[in-house]
Amino acid sequence: MGSSFGQLFRIHTWGESHGGAVGVVVDGCPPRIPLAQEAIQEDLDRRRPGQSHLTTPRQEEDRAEILSGVFEGLTLGTPILILVHNRDARPEAYEQLRDVYRPSHADYTYQAKYGIRNWQGGGRASARETVGRVAAGAVARQVLRHRDAGEVLAWVSQVHAVETKLDPLTVTRELVEAGPTRCPDPEAARQIERRIDDARRRGDSLGGVVTCVARGIPVGLGDPVFDKLEADLAKGLLSLPACKGFEIGSGFASTRMTGSEHNDPFYVEEGRVRTRANRSGGVQGGISNGEAIVIRAAFKPTATIRLDQETVTTSGETTRLEASGRHDPCVLPRAVPMVEAMVALVLCDHLLRQRAIS
Amino acid sequence: MGSSFGQLFRIHTWGESHGGAVGVVVDGCPPRIPLAQEAIQEDLDRRRPGQSHLTTPRQEEDRAEILSGVFEGLTLGTPILILVHNRDARPEAYEQLRDVYRPSHADYTYQAKYGIRNWQGGGRASARETVGRVAAGAVARQVLRHRDAGEVLAWVSQVHAVETKLDPLTVTRELVEAGPTRCPDPEAARQIERRIDDARRRGDSLGGVVTCVARGIPVGLGDPVFDKLEADLAKGLLSLPACKGFEIGSGFASTRMTGSEHNDPFYVEEGRVRTRANRSGGVQGGISNGEAIVIRAAFKPTATIRLDQETVTTSGETTRLEASGRHDPCVLPRAVPMVEAMVALVLCDHLLRQRAIS
Amino acid sequence: MGSSFGQLFRIHTWGESHGGAVGVVVDGCPPRIPLAQEAIQEDLDRRRPGQSHLTTPRQEEDRAEILSGVFEGLTLGTPILILVHNRDARPEAYEQLRDVYRPSHADYTYQAKYGIRNWQGGGRASARETVGRVAAGAVARQVLRHRDAGEVLAWVSQVHAVETKLDPLTVTRELVEAGPTRCPDPEAARQIERRIDDARRRGDSLGGVVTCVARGIPVGLGDPVFDKLEADLAKGLLSLPACKGFEIGSGFASTRMTGSEHNDPFYVEEGRVRTRANRSGGVQGGISNGEAIVIRAAFKPTATIRLDQETVTTSGETTRLEASGRHDPCVLPRAVPMVEAMVALVLCDHLLRQRAIS
Amino acid sequence: MGSSFGQLFRIHTWGESHGGAVGVVVDGCPPRIPLAQEAIQEDLDRRRPGQSHLTTPRQEEDRAEILSGVFEGLTLGTPILILVHNRDARPEAYEQLRDVYRPSHADYTYQAKYGIRNWQGGGRASARETVGRVAAGAVARQVLRHRDAGEVLAWVSQVHAVETKLDPLTVTRELVEAGPTRCPDPEAARQIERRIDDARRRGDSLGGVVTCVARGIPVGLGDPVFDKLEADLAKGLLSLPACKGFEIGSGFASTRMTGSEHNDPFYVEEGRVRTRANRSGGVQGGISNGEAIVIRAAFKPTATIRLDQETVTTSGETTRLEASGRHDPCVLPRAVPMVEAMVALVLCDHLLRQRAIS
Repeated sequence: MGSSFGQLFRIHTWGESHGGAVGVVVDGCPPRIPLAQEAIQEDLDRRRPGQSHLTTPRQEEDRAEILSGVFEGLTLGTPILILVHNRDARPEAYEQLRDVYRPSHADYTYQAKYGIRNWQGGGRASARETVGRVAAGAVARQVLRHRDAGEVLAWVSQVHAVETKLDPLTVTRELVEAGPTRCPDPEAARQIERRIDDARRRGDSLGGVVTCVARGIPVGLGDPVFDKLEADLAKGLLSLPACKGFEIGSGFASTRMTGSEHNDPFYVEEGRVRTRANRSGGVQGGISNGEAIVIRAAFKPTATIRLDQETVTTSGETTRLEASGRHDPCVLPRAVPMVEAMVALVLCDHLLRQRAIS
Repeated sequence: MGSSFGQLFRIHTWGESHGGAVGVVVDGCPPRIPLAQEAIQEDLDRRRPGQSHLTTPRQEEDRAEILSGVFEGLTLGTPILILVHNRDARPEAYEQLRDVYRPSHADYTYQAKYGIRNWQGGGRASARETVGRVAAGAVARQVLRHRDAGEVLAWVSQVHAVETKLDPLTVTRELVEAGPTRCPDPEAARQIERRIDDARRRGDSLGGVVTCVARGIPVGLGDPVFDKLEADLAKGLLSLPACKGFEIGSGFASTRMTGSEHNDPFYVEEGRVRTRANRSGGVQGGISNGEAIVIRAAFKPTATIRLDQETVTTSGETTRLEASGRHDPCVLPRAVPMVEAMVALVLCDHLLRQRAIS
Repeated sequence: MGSSFGQLFRIHTWGESHGGAVGVVVDGCPPRIPLAQEAIQEDLDRRRPGQSHLTTPRQEEDRAEILSGVFEGLTLGTPILILVHNRDARPEAYEQLRDVYRPSHADYTYQAKYGIRNWQGGGRASARETVGRVAAGAVARQVLRHRDAGEVLAWVSQVHAVETKLDPLTVTRELVEAGPTRCPDPEAARQIERRIDDARRRGDSLGGVVTCVARGIPVGLGDPVFDKLEADLAKGLLSLPACKGFEIGSGFASTRMTGSEHNDPFYVEEGRVRTRANRSGGVQGGISNGEAIVIRAAFKPTATIRLDQETVTTSGETTRLEASGRHDPCVLPRAVPMVEAMVALVLCDHLLRQRAIS
Repeated sequence: MGSSFGQLFRIHTWGESHGGAVGVVVDGCPPRIPLAQEAIQEDLDRRRPGQSHLTTPRQEEDRAEILSGVFEGLTLGTPILILVHNRDARPEAYEQLRDVYRPSHADYTYQAKYGIRNWQGGGRASARETVGRVAAGAVARQVLRHRDAGEVLAWVSQVHAVETKLDPLTVTRELVEAGPTRCPDPEAARQIERRIDDARRRGDSLGGVVTCVARGIPVGLGDPVFDKLEADLAKGLLSLPACKGFEIGSGFASTRMTGSEHNDPFYVEEGRVRTRANRSGGVQGGISNGEAIVIRAAFKPTATIRLDQETVTTSGETTRLEASGRHDPCVLPRAVPMVEAMVALVLCDHLLRQRAIS
């Protein structure tokens, strides 16, 4: 429920931003999958704060420890516990936030729901919770790879007004990882970098879009009704901090089309049923059709800014807040591995589910 | 899983488009909620085909029968079985579709996944499956009403290029139900009606957007991590047939804003914490903050059109298809009760979940 | 939850004893399994009241209707709705029970839990709820048969003081179904028949034991920790009305043994690892080992008797009750198909779960 | 699923016997419950090996670390991660077991299911997995205590042929903890101690029974159909290593009674509906009735013995095994906190579930 995701390939994340550690239990992973700490570390490094001048300066090495579920380099089929210690928590920096609700943060709603909150940081609402997701996503990707069931690739396709429209079939990880923005279009990347730098200096923040493609996915993943592949993907993406919107395939643009413009004609290629266009985004009736799965996720500008804002105290008095702590001017580059993780988790879960009934 | 939705207020839909009946089991409904057949019927009537000249001419009376869970007008706390017989199924009309995959339908993916499909109609992929959702949604709305926990209202805010931007706080059910388009803006409604009529004549179809608002929702619904309120809403909406996108609050527009523009300042009004703007869309950190919850769902043009299309047969040969059956030129007016149902189901589920920990 | 059972092969039962109908949704059934109404009817006939002079005289034909999920004799992989109308409900016969709690029935606890109850019979606590389980169990057995994954056979091994100890490997369905007691030992069956007749005349009831064996079950079903095969079997059995105890293999007798007496030595037979004894009951560490799974379930004497009893009214006054309705002097013969159903459901669920990770 | 237990108060255990650590995530715990490390440690100390001369000599301090979910001594409503490092793992002692299946252990079935196993100890099948359960059970007991929802007490009521029949209402924790056997009857305790000592010297092991009572439990816990309180208790108990049987109330003894002997007459005491006897064991129709919940769990003699046994190698050859490692002659004293934990977990889960619908 609250902190669990997936039906057969299930993850349970735990840990507050400023508690002792954060992590995840991955349960339901098939046995005999090669799993090295390095595979997990690589994705955590792409998620971690302080990785470039574009992100929050919080310094976390984010070393993953695997404490169960792996034996002699292979998964056992038992729960995998992955743990990352919090090193650079600075509870004292949050002292001023003890009695104030930060605008567009979860401070107020947590307090209202639970009657208590860990005010020394964002608690579970912090992007730090995604450490467990990214680690689990790395395991899911190992399963997909080992089962020859496709690969997942995401990138920054828009930051504020700078947008790039690359053909999702041509983007490579090398292009994405070429610079700190994770935008695979060099010209757009340069502009994005400038904008983020500028926002950081002003103490402000920027939103944007992450595009994600899953290529080589088997036909038949996804359930027909509530657990449609796009429904589970939408849930996974909207569960990421700051995500405000989701599209698959033609998305909102489809609303201005006619059926005759939008339908994807079928044809046969080398004995395989294919579609000439891919407005469906790789999913039809909730089930993958073998074409590339293409989705887009909208991220709002992060709520932490270093500018003066109107707000209220926990005792209900109006006040002004100028956050003095560290701030991440644009979460988009770090959101890339988070998006990949959620997509890989959904695909891996449905891969197992499909096997169950076959 | 596949055909179930919700954790505590759980529904299980069943039934093929052209089987004997369709329906739903609603499990986990609290006891002693007044529940009359009429409350369910009213929503089914807004969903049923043949309700106006704008929809599919399939004639279904869609009479709901409640076979369990209600005693002397009150819920028992036991599963509620609601059943609707299929009357106007015309399997013979589908005879030509036995061996052909309709473009952008689920025919191919179902066949690939299950190795079998009910070719006499859309099976579970048909919008007919939503009969059970709408009936269950009516039960959920009764619970919300009886617990004084808010109301849910949806409307057609865009069809193809015709768009209307009303303040979500001012729309009423009377305005929505004033005409067959379910667009509460009379001028836009007239244009939409013309466009749908025109599409029907051409044998084509149109997409659009449904906007939904939930007002008077208690503070504190939603879980912090994976079961964020917006994540469950996104899943619910994307699980509807033809839905391709989802937004909450500022949605994709937020991606072009800065944090200082986007953050919702807090203030206090009559002892209650409020936000001056509502770019958060009523949810912060996954938890309702008491403001109106505002979402938008994109629906593609329906795949059934009466125009000549390229496609393949089940044995892998290219062919042409000109569907001769009944066709719904625009699902948007009927999608309104479907969207309301999914939103009510999510809210009702989280209402019970919140009580569990309180 | 409450009315659902199973993780992948999931059933949702619904219906009150005296509502319009009872039934079940079977979700997660693999596609392309042959399923005829007759297979389900056969098991329902073994469960139905009025089948012999030994059971309750309530007359229910219990005709199963399959309303979804099956097409041209094969399962579609979609939810299967099976419905049985209540015919011989006599709400008037329960009029006297409106304000009285029957001893050792669920009347009081339902009222306390829900603040409402259907007093026209036992509601969901009635053995009538098991119609759905038995129908679903018949589907599960079809899956096991079609996958060559073993068979399930139960029988009455004890009624009151009459006990029989047959080798579970030698019992056949023919022996079990030879008489109305479902005790495969003819001499014990005669004595049991006499005792039940006698109890019926006296207006009293008798308890007993059902033994169940599952033969030919694949190695590897069951999960290591909470979802051990015996744990899911115990839950399934204890969820049957009137069940008070459960044993697997050596059961309570094991408590008086030493490890050296109890351990099952391994040996190899035709390349297969076997155990010389089967005190483990076919399960080791929660996982099937290929030997026969042997379990025993204790059923208390049914609570409905026609004798004078002390009790209280719903308004808290002491009173006497002499139930004048129909009474079932011994549920054991009808419990046999119920036990088989629960065991088949657990095995079928774990069969699918095992495929998921393989 | 496999490693998760509970619906609303959910636990996820993880960790192999000889991996780096074992532990649990407790999710769904209500916020603002006082929770100190000491409360958890106390129960772990009653479970840990090496606590007396009657148990396995494995030396584990079993220090619990709480890494999330608690802030300033109170639960946050977020997942609680509890971790215990393995200190006295001796993988080298298991070297001889790499290629041999120990009789009545899970070695063979794990290997068959997963195609891999951690042969350096029992892996997940080891009683070491119960560290997480006991820690989680301590949290559940804190919730029950804080909500004034009753207490759970278990004891050893039988070891091999030595049995004691105390009135469950008179047993106290002081009596149970007075000696290393956890049998509250001093005379029986002495005999049991002798028998266990004797078995240890012989290298053999003994089975027995744990009785558990839950007193002061609110009326109304438990669901009517599959999630009957006794069904969830049975599952919880049978999921413990070495458990072979379960009874509630009259249990197997009920099978030799008549309904008129077995029914519990109702009466009213101080405005509360009570039963004169408690053959129901505190549960009627799956729902608690306010009387003491009384259950019994049968434990077989542990499989690890130091005697010569027939078995097979992983390559299918017959061999003899004389285990030379440490051995626990009787798990019963340590099973007491395990049983209490499972019962407390079930009750706490149903307490939250009951609130959800109220």
